[in-house]
Amino acid sequence: MVNNFPVLVERIKQEGKSLEGGILKVDSFINHQLDPDLLEQMSAEFNRRFDPASYDKIVTIEASGIAPAVMLGYLAHKKVVFAKKKKPSTMSNMLVTEVFSFTKNTTYQICISGEFIHAGERLLFIDDFLANGKAASGIIDLANQAQAKIVGMGFLIEKAFQQGGSLLREQNIHVESLATIASLDNCTITFA
Amino acid sequence: MVNNFPVLVERIKQEGKSLEGGILKVDSFINHQLDPDLLEQMSAEFNRRFDPASYDKIVTIEASGIAPAVMLGYLAHKKVVFAKKKKPSTMSNMLVTEVFSFTKNTTYQICISGEFIHAGERLLFIDDFLANGKAASGIIDLANQAQAKIVGMGFLIEKAFQQGGSLLREQNIHVESLATIASLDNCTITFA
Repeated sequence: MVNNFPVLVERIKQEGKSLEGGILKVDSFINHQLDPDLLEQMSAEFNRRFDPASYDKIVTIEASGIAPAVMLGYLAHKKVVFAKKKKPSTMSNMLVTEVFSFTKNTTYQICISGEFIHAGERLLFIDDFLANGKAASGIIDLANQAQAKIVGMGFLIEKAFQQGGSLLREQNIHVESLATIASLDNCTITFA
Repeated sequence: MVNNFPVLVERIKQEGKSLEGGILKVDSFINHQLDPDLLEQMSAEFNRRFDPASYDKIVTIEASGIAPAVMLGYLAHKKVVFAKKKKPSTMSNMLVTEVFSFTKNTTYQICISGEFIHAGERLLFIDDFLANGKAASGIIDLANQAQAKIVGMGFLIEKAFQQGGSLLREQNIHVESLATIASLDNCTITFA
């Protein structure tokens, strides 16, 4: 089930830092600074793992999911919708759900306009991290509200020592992670 | 000075909506749903207007600036740094400034890690909207703190009836906007 993408694994080994509390710091190439050439390679790998004929549209969540989602959208010629974390004042017909963040120990809302996901649509969800799977579950809820279907989920990095991956795969969702981390114990990055 | 990019103007005419209060709603192709093919055309136009040899790195602000910045970074082979609107707990050495939002009538902070912009670096700022120029001024302040230099600013849409464009051009910054709106009076979109 683990299928690590060597290009990303190498970059994590070079630049990733494991901090206290199970935090993986990858802000020099994923979360704050972006390397478009790496991004293109990662999205091309998603494009090999998810047949573009199997989905209609890509969904993600602002902000860190936007870059890989857009690059995949470009390669696969699919539109991208990014869920917002605050309900914009200028939007009506919003689908809203709540997501619990373990990192911040708070609940926040994510929303997507009902104008942009439709009944019967097949959606591919792309995001940077899979940990507890709370954001992914929120996206499933939004898709259900629209009577759309999540057909796959692609993550740059999965923390296999948290339960998100199992929860999603138990629902028979096609989940792909480009780098799976088995452990961040003792501030050491161990790949699965 | 006005140099409208016909592809974007046509899309705004087709899908943009002018709402009460000078709001231009473009969430079907810029702010919420993204069309990667349009994005590629817009970023290619930025790439014609800003010589890649004239700058070292692209900066933007989460979330709506990320897509055009990343696509330009891909075309021009430049790294992209996106300023964050909240100071992440895992980052030290942060450069921080305050930005006043007229839309929301509040002040918020934007920050960039000092690890990712450096003294002497030439930065190109890319964002979706130019209105009052407050976000752009915040980025200039962050660049100054790092002793880096903003050499150009590219916006998808400029509201010429607000003062941001004049303020930035008076500082001899090379400003390019792909679509310049002269007026949104009476809920009608009038291009400059």
